[in-house]
Amino acid sequence: MRSLVIVVLLCAVTHAYAETRNVRFSAEGQTYYGVLEGKEISVLSGDYFSNPEKTGKKFALDDVELLLPVDPMRITKVIGAAVNTKRPNVVLPENAHPRLFAKFPTSLNPDGGGVRLPPEAGNLNYEGELVVVIGKKASGVSKEEALDYVFGYAVGNDFSENTWYGERKRREEPSRLISKGSDTWACLGSVIVSDFDYKNRSVKTMLNGEVVQNGNTSELMQDVPELVSYISRYITLMPGDLIYTGTVLFEEGARRKMKVGDKLEVTIEGIGSVKNEIVAM
Amino acid sequence: MRSLVIVVLLCAVTHAYAETRNVRFSAEGQTYYGVLEGKEISVLSGDYFSNPEKTGKKFALDDVELLLPVDPMRITKVIGAAVNTKRPNVVLPENAHPRLFAKFPTSLNPDGGGVRLPPEAGNLNYEGELVVVIGKKASGVSKEEALDYVFGYAVGNDFSENTWYGERKRREEPSRLISKGSDTWACLGSVIVSDFDYKNRSVKTMLNGEVVQNGNTSELMQDVPELVSYISRYITLMPGDLIYTGTVLFEEGARRKMKVGDKLEVTIEGIGSVKNEIVAM
Repeated sequence: MRSLVIVVLLCAVTHAYAETRNVRFSAEGQTYYGVLEGKEISVLSGDYFSNPEKTGKKFALDDVELLLPVDPMRITKVIGAAVNTKRPNVVLPENAHPRLFAKFPTSLNPDGGGVRLPPEAGNLNYEGELVVVIGKKASGVSKEEALDYVFGYAVGNDFSENTWYGERKRREEPSRLISKGSDTWACLGSVIVSDFDYKNRSVKTMLNGEVVQNGNTSELMQDVPELVSYISRYITLMPGDLIYTGTVLFEEGARRKMKVGDKLEVTIEGIGSVKNEIVAM
Repeated sequence: MRSLVIVVLLCAVTHAYAETRNVRFSAEGQTYYGVLEGKEISVLSGDYFSNPEKTGKKFALDDVELLLPVDPMRITKVIGAAVNTKRPNVVLPENAHPRLFAKFPTSLNPDGGGVRLPPEAGNLNYEGELVVVIGKKASGVSKEEALDYVFGYAVGNDFSENTWYGERKRREEPSRLISKGSDTWACLGSVIVSDFDYKNRSVKTMLNGEVVQNGNTSELMQDVPELVSYISRYITLMPGDLIYTGTVLFEEGARRKMKVGDKLEVTIEGIGSVKNEIVAM
């Protein structure tokens, strides 16, 4: 028994991440799940959450259209964390809870998708951040076991309208439903990296080629285990559910109002990027 | 052409609602959609949204288990309207928007299901209300056409924790995500009535047999077409998506803190009821 414990501990200590790049894509008129290996995709027998195996079928990356890496019609929720980055002079009270808001499966926007700017949106902002993809049904899980319920990580750009919910219009948007959950306002990169060490990875946002956010996943105030555990105490997380973990800080003066034609690119070290352009509604 | 217009207008004027009572149920180990006719259920060939036909197969109501009338793993959102009942001395500003919040498919709780009371929930409240079930993908629909996108109506009980989001704990719950979206806090009756005139129907809530809410669907400040149209401008509504339209007023002193064992029953005239009991988390 003791030797088994030692072997298990050794495995945990020496665990080398066998990163896997998971994608969902369309080819020959069908939708597939697959594993991206260089310029080739190995087709899986089902979605990531059903213990799929490689079928042996392969496609060249150039011959497929990458889709949102989860099927938006088959997930139950997209949750975001607000104000979740360490700042100078801000210390969280002990036992502070994450600040959460809802986006929707219908808010999701793939790499390359246009981000809708309604004419009445006076201050639409981008926010580059790490996205957690849940892999197993999670209800009441502890911080210690929380990462066992995570399938992988993706790159996200969380768009928000930041005047609608202010004091002046408090009646309309107390819960930020429209100002966070509108269609196309949850951009999500094409790749979910599983078996991935998400810690200490740079997160960078470019606006029209200029660096406007330059942070790191180590700056989360409430880290991934805290977010998953806290949410799961109240709300069951299901496979494919997404948690936008909160944006990194903006460069000085870089929280700009979006206008049609603005180009955004968020990149996370080791995962990849998501590029989107602002379009008229 | 003119006679066609007249015929169409006559049909609209003389339209008699052919109310249909739609249910989802489990029988002989399978899940079915069906139409409830007296004590019998006629099985449909698919879900309500896929133009199903009656298969000819029937079950006695007593031989089946009624389920949530929509499949929570196949819908993309549950939206609620807050503070949406006409009150004495409250006049909405012109062009006021609905106040909206999110619940989740995982918040849904069928008739008879226990409503979880976390020990830290100091003020969990019930709210009886009309629920709209979307029937067709709706994006950017006008008020005039909004009802064409509604499949039917159900009875709901929207539970909320009403201390977590207050000023004292503002950091934790600015968007009311947990205090509205927790598991079991969106009770939904078993029947969706389609081809139903939802107007001027009584809405009554009983707490342990005592009437605690006694209102009417005519008291909505933002009526169903306004809610559907406003949401759909920003957020695409999909078949099965649910809108909790906002609770009726409480009887004097009847907004009580829930305790384990409390029994709630919400009834809407012409639809039916949903009964639930408070259980320890």
